[in-house]
Amino acid sequence: MNWVALVVLLALIEYFVLGGLVGRARVKYAIAAPAVTGHPLFERYFRVHQNSLEQLIIFVPAVWLFGLYVSALWAAVVGAVFLAARILYAVGYIAAPERREAGAVLSGVTEAVLLIGALVGIIRSIVLT
Amino acid sequence: MNWVALVVLLALIEYFVLGGLVGRARVKYAIAAPAVTGHPLFERYFRVHQNSLEQLIIFVPAVWLFGLYVSALWAAVVGAVFLAARILYAVGYIAAPERREAGAVLSGVTEAVLLIGALVGIIRSIVLT
Amino acid sequence: MNWVALVVLLALIEYFVLGGLVGRARVKYAIAAPAVTGHPLFERYFRVHQNSLEQLIIFVPAVWLFGLYVSALWAAVVGAVFLAARILYAVGYIAAPERREAGAVLSGVTEAVLLIGALVGIIRSIVLT
Repeated sequence: MNWVALVVLLALIEYFVLGGLVGRARVKYAIAAPAVTGHPLFERYFRVHQNSLEQLIIFVPAVWLFGLYVSALWAAVVGAVFLAARILYAVGYIAAPERREAGAVLSGVTEAVLLIGALVGIIRSIVLT
Repeated sequence: MNWVALVVLLALIEYFVLGGLVGRARVKYAIAAPAVTGHPLFERYFRVHQNSLEQLIIFVPAVWLFGLYVSALWAAVVGAVFLAARILYAVGYIAAPERREAGAVLSGVTEAVLLIGALVGIIRSIVLT
Repeated sequence: MNWVALVVLLALIEYFVLGGLVGRARVKYAIAAPAVTGHPLFERYFRVHQNSLEQLIIFVPAVWLFGLYVSALWAAVVGAVFLAARILYAVGYIAAPERREAGAVLSGVTEAVLLIGALVGIIRSIVLT
């Protein structure tokens, strides 16, 4: 599971960096806390960060369970595609909100693969034991 | 822990579906990103998804630790109640925001059971070793 | 890993309590769902809860991987600092948004320590096997 752990950790680091970018955008566009709106560019950074959170809550347990119940190697491979999709999403969204689509769809597909694969693997384990 | 894994995975799949419903509502009510407000019905879907995220960050580690430190069987049973509560919450909230209460309270109770149970189990393990 | 489990669980309990405070603030400041704005004090509670979620998605897997790949003892120690930082953050932010800084910086530093430490530990495991 070392490679799965590595992919999870890199996804967390990417998210940590996105959080730093939100903080920087808050200063740059002069959005005083607790406001989270007020400048379209700030809102892009904020929404990228938020959406990444929404995906990580699925990704981290799903890739781990897929790794445990199906294949650690394939979990790492699909996880690496997820990681690339999230970077694509972030870069696209910050450039222009409508350019978030490719990354969003690819993230969703990788999550669906992990969820369905892990579901099959878990059910198989339950049935076989 | 197979049954705990199954409950966690089903909760993730429910959340994944809720995310899809937000995307569909974004199109249906013509809320262009990065906005997350603008139509009360869109906001219901958005808030259901957001609240489910807030609960999952507690549920996933708590049910796992409860399963490891207290009882895998009871973790799965309480987890199944949580899952039902989240579906009740989502269906209720989308029908009318004030109808989210039953599901919200039941989610909170199951989380409290998992948190307190796991806390007792962990402290017992620390004391006994 | 018992102490790491304890720190994770206490962070989840703190977050659960913050969620309860948001609910109480919603009633106190008469913010009807699905709105999440409308009164500056409600927004502080809401943002504290939200920011804590954003940190937990990093903290929970990172402290666990650090514990597995580097040192369970140090994971628990750094995790305890994180826990203190989050309480500092919440108390500061609710008093005045600009007083969230100390807790926010300390949270970020502990997360960076966990992320970088775990990354080094995982890479070392991959290289050595």
